[in-house]
Amino acid sequence: MHRSLAVELPLLTDRDVRLNGWVHRIRDLGGIRFVVIRDRSGLAQVVVGREIDLGEINCEWVVEVTGRCRVESRAPGGVEVAANAITPISAAEPPPLEIFNPEAAREVRLDTLLDHRAVSLRIPNVLDVFRVEAVVLDAFRSFLTGEGFTEIVTPKLVVAGAEGGAAIFEVKYFERSACLAQSPQFYKQIMVGSGLERVFETGHAYRAEKSETSRHTTEFLSLDFEMGFIDSVQDVMRLHARLIGAIFAAVRERCGGILAARGVTLPELTEIPQLAFPEAKRILAREFGKTDGLDGDLDTDAERLICQWAERELGSELLFVTGYHVDRRPLYTMPDLERPPQTHSFDLLFRGTEITTGGQRIHGYAQLVDSIRANGLDPASYAGYLEAFRHGMPPHGGMGMGLERLIKQMLALPNVREACTFPRDRYRMTP
Amino acid sequence: MHRSLAVELPLLTDRDVRLNGWVHRIRDLGGIRFVVIRDRSGLAQVVVGREIDLGEINCEWVVEVTGRCRVESRAPGGVEVAANAITPISAAEPPPLEIFNPEAAREVRLDTLLDHRAVSLRIPNVLDVFRVEAVVLDAFRSFLTGEGFTEIVTPKLVVAGAEGGAAIFEVKYFERSACLAQSPQFYKQIMVGSGLERVFETGHAYRAEKSETSRHTTEFLSLDFEMGFIDSVQDVMRLHARLIGAIFAAVRERCGGILAARGVTLPELTEIPQLAFPEAKRILAREFGKTDGLDGDLDTDAERLICQWAERELGSELLFVTGYHVDRRPLYTMPDLERPPQTHSFDLLFRGTEITTGGQRIHGYAQLVDSIRANGLDPASYAGYLEAFRHGMPPHGGMGMGLERLIKQMLALPNVREACTFPRDRYRMTP
Repeated sequence: MHRSLAVELPLLTDRDVRLNGWVHRIRDLGGIRFVVIRDRSGLAQVVVGREIDLGEINCEWVVEVTGRCRVESRAPGGVEVAANAITPISAAEPPPLEIFNPEAAREVRLDTLLDHRAVSLRIPNVLDVFRVEAVVLDAFRSFLTGEGFTEIVTPKLVVAGAEGGAAIFEVKYFERSACLAQSPQFYKQIMVGSGLERVFETGHAYRAEKSETSRHTTEFLSLDFEMGFIDSVQDVMRLHARLIGAIFAAVRERCGGILAARGVTLPELTEIPQLAFPEAKRILAREFGKTDGLDGDLDTDAERLICQWAERELGSELLFVTGYHVDRRPLYTMPDLERPPQTHSFDLLFRGTEITTGGQRIHGYAQLVDSIRANGLDPASYAGYLEAFRHGMPPHGGMGMGLERLIKQMLALPNVREACTFPRDRYRMTP
Repeated sequence: MHRSLAVELPLLTDRDVRLNGWVHRIRDLGGIRFVVIRDRSGLAQVVVGREIDLGEINCEWVVEVTGRCRVESRAPGGVEVAANAITPISAAEPPPLEIFNPEAAREVRLDTLLDHRAVSLRIPNVLDVFRVEAVVLDAFRSFLTGEGFTEIVTPKLVVAGAEGGAAIFEVKYFERSACLAQSPQFYKQIMVGSGLERVFETGHAYRAEKSETSRHTTEFLSLDFEMGFIDSVQDVMRLHARLIGAIFAAVRERCGGILAARGVTLPELTEIPQLAFPEAKRILAREFGKTDGLDGDLDTDAERLICQWAERELGSELLFVTGYHVDRRPLYTMPDLERPPQTHSFDLLFRGTEITTGGQRIHGYAQLVDSIRANGLDPASYAGYLEAFRHGMPPHGGMGMGLERLIKQMLALPNVREACTFPRDRYRMTP
């Protein structure tokens, strides 16, 4: 008999069915047992009469159920299966967490959930996060493909120190040393210059973050796009706003039940308001008395406060802050010559936190060489990158966004680690 | 004026147009100049009259052209643009390779192409490889999503030695040591057990390969799927055959011009024939006199020869070889108890080379613990992985395939490095 999924049962009443899945829960009402089966599509209620011996079958056993599907208004989905047989496929020891308890994930410490990841992922509302993640990835790629972008794959093993800065993981690479890429920045720019013009990548990036915060991990999935032949950074922000709108729309459409169950909503996007950094600074001083932590960019407190202001005054949970100062932005950032020391850069803030960093990049070879030197670095170490600029680069810009942090903000997760299947931080390397 | 792409010109005859792109080539026919503009969509011929001063504009300069689009049967695409103006956007030094020469990529050494990657990627037939790659990635994900699979993201920073073996890159991880994942194997199995049942991933994997061959790099993109509730390894192979068929169909449909220009075709798939390892061994001895290098699996020579045989005798460029011996397969491989020492494993060979490794996995906890011990390893080091099995795993199997090697075989590239934007091997870390 063909296997049916739990979600298909309402269409199969009065038919014999076969279900395969995990025993989610067993309730014994004096001889009659209600066995809830969990499969990839959801939950199904199975009624097991006295004549059937369940043997040792218990929670998390993998089983096969055959039986008759029938209407039962009190069952979830309005149907249940009256079992003819229930056959064990794999035994299970009692799990260290109550998988069937929707509160389980909230009642235990995050560390416990992460220590027992193979089990905690089975808690339906824990697993739902990763169903949303898959939809976000798909929406990101689909939207950009529709806009003429090409997916690229670039290396994560790079030579030491090209991007400068600390927080780099070192790799022993045969007789030499390499490091893990902190972003695909240089490579996606080269790929714009390759002639693809518009490129995106969904690949891992690494930051050796020493501090343990609720929004950093050492390994994350970086969603990046980069586009050539822009007129200004406004082209990048406009496309980015539409991209976010497309992601939110896809999640609303395909994960509506998950959003509802978690009690979260996603904004319907029309346009994302913009605020220049000096104006943000004035507002923070005036409205919140905040004057520190604003040295050319916003600290985490400032991000939180300016988002409060934007929601109250502009009615928007999303806000572009533009014009960060040149000494707080990477060396490839296009300076705003009319408004020094500002740059043609932006962050996208969402519900109190920066989710995206982007901007227009320097495309002139001489200007880029000057910027490398002005940062105290040696252009010779950037030869492969500079070659793209030496031989003709169009005006271009783009952005990078951490998938897990976006999911955290969308689903109002307290900690970004909940948006990682197997998070990595200074103290956590397993499972 | 709105920017038009080269590919759109045939629809814009007798209209004023604006083109942006790179100067691909300039031919001077005594005053009248033909400037070929290259953009992401292709090439456009621009006629520049004597009255226009090109100044220093030369190959690879980024320019803006405005002019009138007109029919010209001798031009590529049957149209050309009569320029009103041609404005430089970015200057370019003369490139170290002849980008406009379709033979350029064949005339220089691969090392030269890779040393000057920012330039060599601009050679249209070099760049086309990565257009195909994007289509393959999309087809892989689309097909599997349609079959009920969920995309997953799993860590590439893992604890040392979990998978055993050599060829591991070590990472300095704060006070400890970590290593780069050689495959997402354990994590995708845990994700099957999470309840997603059917998962796929497109992520980097690492092998510290010391030898420099035409089919290995140290970093590659691993295409993986894993599926639960299989009846046997045949379910995995059946789905895999359909997946390959879907990938080939997508490339034929969306990259037909590229295939034609390279003179390659892709097989129309119906079914992929299977050959058990002992039978392959007999054929190799009988048909090719080959008896060495067949100790439980096939060496590279054997792969090449058995593919020759399959093409000749079975009319197939693809061949599943099954039943590799247990001591030549990873510890999680399901043994074939009816045919020891064979296993329920397979490789997919395509045009002389293995492109996929897959099989059914052990799903019983006790059997997996025994297998770990039998491999001389300590089950305690596998705690996070084993937890999935301790608490109920369905029968499952899957496969892994290197994107770059698949592209190499599809496009008949001599070296897998040509299918990497920025390949990594023992001696190459830049650009």
